[in-house]
Amino acid sequence: MTDCLGDGAGDMTPMDLYEKLTSQGDTVRTLKTEKAAKADIDAAVQLLLKLKVDYKQVTGQDYKTGCPPSECVVSQDNGPAADGEDMVDPWNVSTTNAKGVDYDKLIVRFGSSKIDQELVDRIERVSGQKAHRFLRRGIFFSHRSVMLVILICSHLVLDAYEKNKSFYLYTGRGPSSDALHMGHLIPFIFTKWLQDTFDIPLVIQLTDDEKYLWKDLSLEDCHRYTMENAKDIIACGFDINKTFIFSDLDYMGASPDFYRNVVKVQKHVTFNQVKGIFGFGDSDCIGKIAFPAIQAAPSFSSSFPQIFKGRKDVQCLIPCAIDQDPYFRMTRDVAPRIGYPKPALLHSTFFPALQGAQTKMSASDANSSIFLTDTPKQIKNKVNKHAFSGGKDTVEEHRKYGGNPDVDVSFMYLTFFLEDDEQLEKIRQDYASGALLTGELKKRLIETLQPLITSHQERRKQVTEETVKQFMTPRPLNYSF
Amino acid sequence: MTDCLGDGAGDMTPMDLYEKLTSQGDTVRTLKTEKAAKADIDAAVQLLLKLKVDYKQVTGQDYKTGCPPSECVVSQDNGPAADGEDMVDPWNVSTTNAKGVDYDKLIVRFGSSKIDQELVDRIERVSGQKAHRFLRRGIFFSHRSVMLVILICSHLVLDAYEKNKSFYLYTGRGPSSDALHMGHLIPFIFTKWLQDTFDIPLVIQLTDDEKYLWKDLSLEDCHRYTMENAKDIIACGFDINKTFIFSDLDYMGASPDFYRNVVKVQKHVTFNQVKGIFGFGDSDCIGKIAFPAIQAAPSFSSSFPQIFKGRKDVQCLIPCAIDQDPYFRMTRDVAPRIGYPKPALLHSTFFPALQGAQTKMSASDANSSIFLTDTPKQIKNKVNKHAFSGGKDTVEEHRKYGGNPDVDVSFMYLTFFLEDDEQLEKIRQDYASGALLTGELKKRLIETLQPLITSHQERRKQVTEETVKQFMTPRPLNYSF
Repeated sequence: MTDCLGDGAGDMTPMDLYEKLTSQGDTVRTLKTEKAAKADIDAAVQLLLKLKVDYKQVTGQDYKTGCPPSECVVSQDNGPAADGEDMVDPWNVSTTNAKGVDYDKLIVRFGSSKIDQELVDRIERVSGQKAHRFLRRGIFFSHRSVMLVILICSHLVLDAYEKNKSFYLYTGRGPSSDALHMGHLIPFIFTKWLQDTFDIPLVIQLTDDEKYLWKDLSLEDCHRYTMENAKDIIACGFDINKTFIFSDLDYMGASPDFYRNVVKVQKHVTFNQVKGIFGFGDSDCIGKIAFPAIQAAPSFSSSFPQIFKGRKDVQCLIPCAIDQDPYFRMTRDVAPRIGYPKPALLHSTFFPALQGAQTKMSASDANSSIFLTDTPKQIKNKVNKHAFSGGKDTVEEHRKYGGNPDVDVSFMYLTFFLEDDEQLEKIRQDYASGALLTGELKKRLIETLQPLITSHQERRKQVTEETVKQFMTPRPLNYSF
Repeated sequence: MTDCLGDGAGDMTPMDLYEKLTSQGDTVRTLKTEKAAKADIDAAVQLLLKLKVDYKQVTGQDYKTGCPPSECVVSQDNGPAADGEDMVDPWNVSTTNAKGVDYDKLIVRFGSSKIDQELVDRIERVSGQKAHRFLRRGIFFSHRSVMLVILICSHLVLDAYEKNKSFYLYTGRGPSSDALHMGHLIPFIFTKWLQDTFDIPLVIQLTDDEKYLWKDLSLEDCHRYTMENAKDIIACGFDINKTFIFSDLDYMGASPDFYRNVVKVQKHVTFNQVKGIFGFGDSDCIGKIAFPAIQAAPSFSSSFPQIFKGRKDVQCLIPCAIDQDPYFRMTRDVAPRIGYPKPALLHSTFFPALQGAQTKMSASDANSSIFLTDTPKQIKNKVNKHAFSGGKDTVEEHRKYGGNPDVDVSFMYLTFFLEDDEQLEKIRQDYASGALLTGELKKRLIETLQPLITSHQERRKQVTEETVKQFMTPRPLNYSF
């Protein structure tokens, strides 16, 4: 299977690309010397130019003959952002743009690939069903590995037995508080859709060790948040027979195979590399420095022998917010060196704060987002009082000039949660034209969120300690590997 | 118990010492101003001078009023050794002196305390038995924590029930090959004596993860060496009811409490600190950087809830070679910050290579030491051919001028393995006077080693896979905590 899943240029190392470029340069020179047909020369030059663009994208440097790339691919990016650029790493996301982070620029900086209409169409075609609204609306906007596309396509023509074995999903969360907000649900909502659509195993990592290392919290608090967060995750509707949720603090001490993979990754990543990728410094504690290996390890199926029966080659697909990409760039660099397949990725945009896409949601500021514990009344008040509006100052002006849905947080939230594309488009047009007032737009959002959150709360109430325990017990899932 | 076990100056932090010094300076000034009795002033000045010496020893800096110590105690030492100094860290030991490392200088550099005759006498007095030859002969030559002395003393007056609870032993080995040599046994021989004398639990860590991170070995090889090395350790005669042997690769994945302690240590040690203590650099892998926490964690009784029933306060005593001290200097610095008692330490000298105390034993050079797998004939040949001699070139010269036992490897080996003090002293005198020839000295060594190794081999043969499994199963030991 490995051969037909070979990655495209986006997955080549700088050195691979450098060598391909050098050889293509030779080809062009030879064709010119031999006075070959113009069409042949043009085609060769086209390819050369394309390779130069790829090279620049991957290395951030211009190609120079005789000058091999100096930097390892994993440190290609994510040092501090340049002046005026958006800041995106696993601990900080900031932008000065009211529309939010410029995701197209991020794709170029991170060297990932855009999820374009063609890819969405392809997914719809092969799955025979409508793509999830997060895909249709560019909320999951970026990916790594063409492998992914081919996997999804090939997956659906496999028979049931083979289908079981083809890939698995991995996502996670860092449990730093009891209070989850709507934004925290995005990867889980999408992951559930992937699980339902493709019928595959799912592992969910709760990084309580990470939170202990980064925050001023006790191990006990981090573990308690884990157990509480697990209930919210379970309430998203995951299938208990197909899903394993784990706390790092518990699973590390319950699985020698998981620890072995952690150590393997730790042997193949240097401090220089994590410094380049995550910006760690000399005064960071050694736990932070070593942690990326712990987030990497679940990308390898051998970390879960109870599920995959010791198989090392089951392909992993990771849906996550784009800020988690640095971990998996590192993982993809290490994977082939320790004999494992590279995980594929699907990246989501960020869920904006109520105060606007350039502000930060904060668990300590209850008014910065809608929390899963909010009552219908709280939801109504928060949206009405705090949701940043793209409308005009007076009704008259609004009717005359229209509002700006691109910076309007209520409209942004609707793109996340309103299922009906036509309704959403009509709201957009009406708001832009001025036919729809800010108050009316907010009302639509409130009516959309209230039942969603109420039913989440009802499902969460059904989640007993026993259910949590079952989800979190290392055990075989309903798949035979 | 904590109060009466307060450490001496050697265990004070630089800041504690600085504050004590400053306050003593004030006292002296006050006494002088008040024209106090000369004797009082002299006594206060004496104490001030003593504190200055302590301060210099602990910080490596001269005391200056108003200038608090800049460096943390854990990085006080063990950067690269100065020119002409012996090099001692967990991976390198080297000296240019034929007598071996200058251990008195090492005590000053490391800031540990010498095991003097008074301490050995005290141990003999309270235990009512002769101190082990390693103590009598300065092979275990250094310690940390006067706590240790008090512990040993108090231990023997406790009733049996309390005795069980007072302290435990921790030692270990990095399993990098199948072939153990005599030198590897030193900490285990001494630890067994401590266990027999004080009747306390013992944990033995086999750092297969460390060896994987440092050496060009696979995880599987490291784990296999662990299982083989465990047999040699068991053959030293440890009591299966009082001893837990563990592989890091296995125990990490079997004990959430062990991992929790690892993470706690990792949160409280920075890269700067491990750089200072172990000399790690930016191009070292993150596994090495994080590893010291894994060697630290068994110093805390809560890493073994199956043995200590969750108790966090059982005092740990670590017998080890002095090159392992950097790990435990770090551990002792972290311990109070995470709410655990500091481990106490007993340090041994190094076992010399056959070619002399300034050369290195190497597992890949079979002639550099006596291995536990050597036959009586191999032992005889190795000693006769390779043991560096302190004798003179001819029998005539030797008879006339005598030999030098201080650089003679056969004599050094006898100090490790010949039990009888009087015989050993007679050999020393006879060799120094020339009455004993080199061939005769070597014969004594051969006759001492052959039965030791043969009986080790016989005991090792009795060690079944089942026995290894029992020793290595996390389980309660024969102590009620």
